[in-house]
Formats: sequence, C-alpha cells, structure tokens
Amino acid sequence: MFASKVDTLLETIRKLTRRGAYQNVKKILEKLHAADVAYLFRYLNEGEQVKIFSIIADTEMASDILSQVDTPTSARILTRMEVEKAAEILHDMDPDDQVSILEDIPEDVREEIISQFSESDAESIEEIMQYPEDSAGRIMNTNYFALQEDVTVSEAIAEIQKRGAEATEMVFYIYVVDSRNHLVGVCSLRQLLLVPPSTTVMSVMAHEVVSVRAETDQEDVARLVEKYDFLAVPVTDDDNKLLGIVTVDDVIDVIRHEATEDIMKMVGTGDEYLNRSVFRRARMRMPWMLAAFIGEVIGIQFLHMYNVTLDRIVALAFFLPIIIAMGGNIGATSMTIVVRGLATGRIAAKQLKVVILKELSVALLLGIVYGLFLTTLAYFQFGSVNYLGFVVGMSMLISMLMAAAIGSLMPIVLHLLKVDPAVATGPFVTSTVDSLGILIYMGLATAILM
Amino acid sequence: MFASKVDTLLETIRKLTRRGAYQNVKKILEKLHAADVAYLFRYLNEGEQVKIFSIIADTEMASDILSQVDTPTSARILTRMEVEKAAEILHDMDPDDQVSILEDIPEDVREEIISQFSESDAESIEEIMQYPEDSAGRIMNTNYFALQEDVTVSEAIAEIQKRGAEATEMVFYIYVVDSRNHLVGVCSLRQLLLVPPSTTVMSVMAHEVVSVRAETDQEDVARLVEKYDFLAVPVTDDDNKLLGIVTVDDVIDVIRHEATEDIMKMVGTGDEYLNRSVFRRARMRMPWMLAAFIGEVIGIQFLHMYNVTLDRIVALAFFLPIIIAMGGNIGATSMTIVVRGLATGRIAAKQLKVVILKELSVALLLGIVYGLFLTTLAYFQFGSVNYLGFVVGMSMLISMLMAAAIGSLMPIVLHLLKVDPAVATGPFVTSTVDSLGILIYMGLATAILM
Repeated sequence: MFASKVDTLLETIRKLTRRGAYQNVKKILEKLHAADVAYLFRYLNEGEQVKIFSIIADTEMASDILSQVDTPTSARILTRMEVEKAAEILHDMDPDDQVSILEDIPEDVREEIISQFSESDAESIEEIMQYPEDSAGRIMNTNYFALQEDVTVSEAIAEIQKRGAEATEMVFYIYVVDSRNHLVGVCSLRQLLLVPPSTTVMSVMAHEVVSVRAETDQEDVARLVEKYDFLAVPVTDDDNKLLGIVTVDDVIDVIRHEATEDIMKMVGTGDEYLNRSVFRRARMRMPWMLAAFIGEVIGIQFLHMYNVTLDRIVALAFFLPIIIAMGGNIGATSMTIVVRGLATGRIAAKQLKVVILKELSVALLLGIVYGLFLTTLAYFQFGSVNYLGFVVGMSMLISMLMAAAIGSLMPIVLHLLKVDPAVATGPFVTSTVDSLGILIYMGLATAILM
Repeated sequence: MFASKVDTLLETIRKLTRRGAYQNVKKILEKLHAADVAYLFRYLNEGEQVKIFSIIADTEMASDILSQVDTPTSARILTRMEVEKAAEILHDMDPDDQVSILEDIPEDVREEIISQFSESDAESIEEIMQYPEDSAGRIMNTNYFALQEDVTVSEAIAEIQKRGAEATEMVFYIYVVDSRNHLVGVCSLRQLLLVPPSTTVMSVMAHEVVSVRAETDQEDVARLVEKYDFLAVPVTDDDNKLLGIVTVDDVIDVIRHEATEDIMKMVGTGDEYLNRSVFRRARMRMPWMLAAFIGEVIGIQFLHMYNVTLDRIVALAFFLPIIIAMGGNIGATSMTIVVRGLATGRIAAKQLKVVILKELSVALLLGIVYGLFLTTLAYFQFGSVNYLGFVVGMSMLISMLMAAAIGSLMPIVLHLLKVDPAVATGPFVTSTVDSLGILIYMGLATAILM
C-alpha cells in the first residue's frame, strides 16, 4: 500500500466515521490486510483509533491488527476497552506479543486482564515475563513445530499435513528433538521430500544446530540470523531443551528498533519518544539537557577565569563560537562512528587502538586545513591584534584533536565498562569538548597574547 | 561464534601464517562456516587478507566467503588476484553479489574480469547493472523457483525433488507463472502437501501476489517485507513478468545499511567510512566541515556587528557558548527525531505539522526551565550588570525555540524537495542554529542593556 492510497483511505474512513456509517467502515477494514490497518492507525489520533477499533467486531482481526500496531498504542487502546473484550483480543495473540503489550498496560488493568485468562495461559505469560527484557525468551514463539528423531519421513509429512490446518507458525525449518525434548537436529521440508518415505528423520537431519539460550540478548540473536542468513533460530534452556523459535520477522523488528534506539539515545531521547506527549518528551530530555547545561556552566567558569584576557582583547570572543563548533563537529562525528561501529560489530575490541589513531589522524588533517583558514581570516579581518591569527588557528587545531580523542574514547570507555555507549554520549561529549575547547583557546591566548 | 572465540582463532591463524604453516591454516578455515571466515576477515589487515585468501584453494569456498565479506574488501582482494582466478571466484556467486563487487573494482580490471565470462553471464551482469542503484533489481536473485500454473501438485513435487540436488535458492514460496512467464500466483511447499497429488497448482495458489518492480527502491522493498512479514518478494517487469526474487536476508542487509547510512550521513560521513584510509576519510568529511565552517564564519560577522556591545559588557561573552550549545542540543535532537522518523515511516507527511508543533512545545518547556536556571546563575555570579540575567535567560529560551524550529523544519523541507534529509543536515543545522543564536543573543543584549 503506497502513500497516495493511504491518504485516500484515511479520508474515506474519516468521512464515513463522522457520518456514523460504521457498516461501510467495517467493510473497508475487512478487505484490508491487518498490516495495512495497523499502518493506517499511525495516522489516526487516539479518539479515532478507539472509535474505529470498536467497529471491528471480529476478535481475530482485532488481535491481528493490534499485534502489528506499535506496542504503546495497542496498550492504550486495550486499556480503554472493557476488560473481558481486551482479554479476548489478547488471548488470540502470540505469547511474545501478549507480554510486550501487557507490560505497557497500567498494572491494575493488566492484572484484571490476566485474571480473565485460563491458569495455563496466565502461567505461560508469567514464564515469558521472567526472561530478561530484550532477551530471546521475550520474542520467541512457543508455537514451534518439532518432530521426534525416530519418526519416519512419511510420518513427518503426515504430521505436517495434520498441523497444516491449524496454521501455526510457518514451517521453514523442522526441528528434531529426542524423547526428552532436547534439540538434536534440524532439517527442511524440502529435504524430507528428497528421500524415501521410510527413512527416519534422524538420518536426514543436520546434527549441528545453531541455537540460542532464552537469556541471549536479542541483538546477539539478530547478529546471528544476519550472519548466517537464517529464517529462524531455535531457543533452548540450559539443558538444551527446546523452548521456542525466534523468526526472522522478529529479528527485523529488533534490528530496526536497535538502530533507531541507538540514534535516539545518542541525542538523549529513546525509540518511544514519538509516542509520548509533550510533557513526557520534555521529561525524557530533561536529564540529558541537564548534563549538557552543567558541562556548559563549567565552560562559563573557565571563561571567567580568563576574564582579564578577554577584557583586554575582546576580539577573542569573536572566535569562541567557531572554535567550539568545529571541535564539537569533529567530536560528534568520531563519537557516532564509534558508537555505531560498536553496535553493528564493525568495530571490534581488537581494533579500538587503530580506530582512535585513525580518528586522530583525520582530525589532524582537517585541523591543519581549517586552522589555516581561520588564521587567514583572523589576519585579514583582525590583523591589528598581533599573533591573533596564530592563536585562533592553533586553538582550533588542538581543540579538534582533543575532540576526536574524546569523541572516540568516551564510547569505547563506556563499552569497556559494559555501559551502552549510545546512552546520551551526545550531550556528554559535546559539553566536555566545549569546556575543554574554551580552556585550550583562552589558555593559549593568555600565554601568547598577554 | 562469540568474541572470545574470534580472538583465539585470530591469534592461531596469525601465528600459523607467520610460521608458514599454510596447510594448518587451511584446515582451520575449512572447518569454519563461510560466514565465520568472512567475520574474521574484518579483523585482518589487507596483507593478511590477501595472504590467507591465497591459501583457500577451493573456488566455491572462496566465493562463499567473498560474497559475505563487505563489498569494498572483496573488491580489493579480487583486484589483487590474477584475473582468471578472480573471474572464477566471481562466477560462482549470485548475480547480485557479482554486480555489487564488480562495481567496486577499478574499471580496467573489471572489464578484464568480465571478458573472462561467457557471453550470457556477461549479459546478465550488464542487465542487472542497468537497474538503478539501490533498486530491487540490484539485489534480486534470478535463480528463483517458479512453476507453470497448469502443473499438478505431484509434478510440482517431482520438480522440487529434481531441483533439490542443485541447491538453488531455498524454496519457501513457490511462484506460479503462466506460459509467458507472467506472475499469476504463489503457494507454499506445505500447501502442496495438503491437497491430493492430482490437483493443479493453479487451484491451490493464492491469486493475489504482492510484487515489486525491478526499479522499486530497496528501502520500499524492505518496508514491504517488514510490514507483511514476508520471507521473499517477487520482482517483476512492467508487464508483470517474473524477473527474480528478493529474499529476507537481503532485506536485513538493506535495513542495517540504511540505518547506519542515515546516522553516518547526519554527521557528514557515510556507511563506507570505516573502510577508508585516513586521507579518504578526511576528504569525505571535508565538504561538510566546510559547510559548518562557513556557517560559523557568518556567526563571527554577526558578533563583529555587535562589537561595541561586547566591548562595553565583556560578561556577555561568558554566556555565548552556553546559549549556542543548548540551542545546538535542542536542534540536533529535533533534527534526529525527524530524520529518523521520516526514514522509518514513523512520521508521515500528514503529521508534519503536529511534529513541528510538538517539538516547539517541548523546546518551550525546556527553554523556560533552563532559561530560569541561567538567569539565576547570571544573577548570582554577575549581578553587577543590571538585566544581564534577563537577557541571557530570554536569549536561551528564544534560541532553543528557534533551534527546535530549524531542527525539525530543515529535514522536512529537504524531504518535501525529495532530497535525502539525512545528508549532512547535522553540520548544516548546527551552524545555522549557532549563527542565529548569536544574532538573537547579541541583538537582545544590545536592545536591553545598551
């Protein structure tokens, strides 16, 4: 569905809703793929979302749509529904979707909804909730398809035919387990078709199966799938017993989310930012802004230290912003390269020294070029102050080197300390680079010009 | 394969290579998955890469590895090999991998390599090269599996069994074409198993197939796969004739690449940055730095305009960095949110007004808070200058509002002009925000304090 179609559909749906022509809206929605309805939901405000959702009577369609809408929105819609209806809709979803939505529902409502579930369903939800956030256990599908190792190919195919009607998780890999549910092999449906029907699955399957633990970080799972081009990865417990599978579509969500989260964190927000109200957004950004503010207040103190110099040579103030800005530019770039390189695995622990040295060399080259530019400018525009050109050019070069060092070192240090390097390195690097830039510039100016 | 294992393997391989124990290196490499060898390659320098690659005698293994190493590295290794060997290795790859690597090989070498290919192979490469860069045609696999619509299920399964030995692209969806190769339907291998063998494929298949054109942008293909959780999408020409398929593993690469590219572009580099030499890196960043430099030089002129004010109240200079920095911070965040939101489709054309208004509201809230902080600081530390606190607080508030407006508007304008909003909006936004911040601050100071 493309943008133009979305616009037309939205207009039609809005018009019909206003007119109260709910039956027509329903007909339109029923003809769409659940993913398309989920997509339309992004463009509707909360009132419209709830309204239109109440029109969709079919529970299965409702849960299909909600499992594809972003989690906070789904949670909000379900919270505003009757508990019984919400429980019914949630019940039809995959356990991983249930859990991620339930977590965004206020605790009292959540407990009410869970109390509507059968005991075994409630238990399986609690089981998934026990896995750490962002772990494989949270996104795995427990509706996987596995065969016993001593089953023959013809029995296996009969089983697939039987299960086919249930339309569970799509079968691309067939996992093979022993009598105690230990994962022992894997084969594809196509492989089963290539051998005589009396062959046992055991003799067809590959014995080496790449699997992950339920506690494995989702990003590690994603990297595994990406590296080996898997369509799914089996998830096992510490005893190698099969618990579920993570499929490639979940991996795509992890990769997309991770990238956005990385970018957002660097500027001091998060992936959830766009779903928040103005007050929540301000609150999310407040602490990072505070870090930046404090850093800059330190800069004020540095400037104040050199107030005699500044008093005598006011022209120095003119170059303050450019020296800080060019350093900040270099620092932000180095930081981004390192943060992203660490996240995608393009930069590995062994290469850190090389990365820093290269960033410093780049900063040296750029610093010489732009330092000379600035020296020239200062000479022609403010030639009356002797050596001013030298001071500003030199300060720019040194502060660019310093910025490259801080920009590439800070995320590396955080990474080695096992802290996510993306978290607000942005404001932190910028304010450090700013204050140190001031110190370098005013220090040099005082030493040479006074 | 985890980090610790990579380290041990690397050490062993390096030690053995130094000792000239190539047979042992070969044995180790042969036991590894091609994706693992490709992964190791990242940590080797070019000399080691070429050395180790010359040890791998097996052409198939060599092409497996090279199609998983990043393209510039593969291109560099192949360029340093004999043309015949390079052509042989390339020949074993999928056409899409061939093309992306060939494009990174210097033109003279490239032509020599292509001249080694059979006429039909050379033609198919040229055909793919005709599709626009970053289009579906460039990443599609032309080794797809399709059936004629009038074939029966038993014939279809026999065909799959026959093709199974060739180990072509994995069969998850079976595309169905008419006698003139028009795409008419799709079904899964499992669906074939659920019906009597004499049924025709036509009566099993789904008639509505989501397909893309060869010219479709890869990011649009990725969004489609992501939205509908597809494992592959068929690619057709304008006549709906089947040309190939794009598989989910290629889509993952597109998503990962796109996210990194976005982040890198915003800070004025590109995804390829890490593969470049120091000089190339400096050259990549030079133009964006120049944009920033020019912006900041304009800032110098603004400051110079107000040199009388600055001369009389030197304390104004103390607050210059903090006012600029806090504006820059807000601007960078707004910009990042909008750029990323546009890229992931989370922000749609219809919502742009809402996005800008919300960002302005957030900036207003944060501006009031931090403006008051700064006023307080100025009052206590520089109380001797009347109204200085008011001027600095007010300037910070206004420049934060201005920064939020520019940070969110600039990418939107670029987007509406069909320019990629990620391209270097970073330096551009920052330097605009800086200069305007100076103008606001000095203008206000002159109006109120002079």
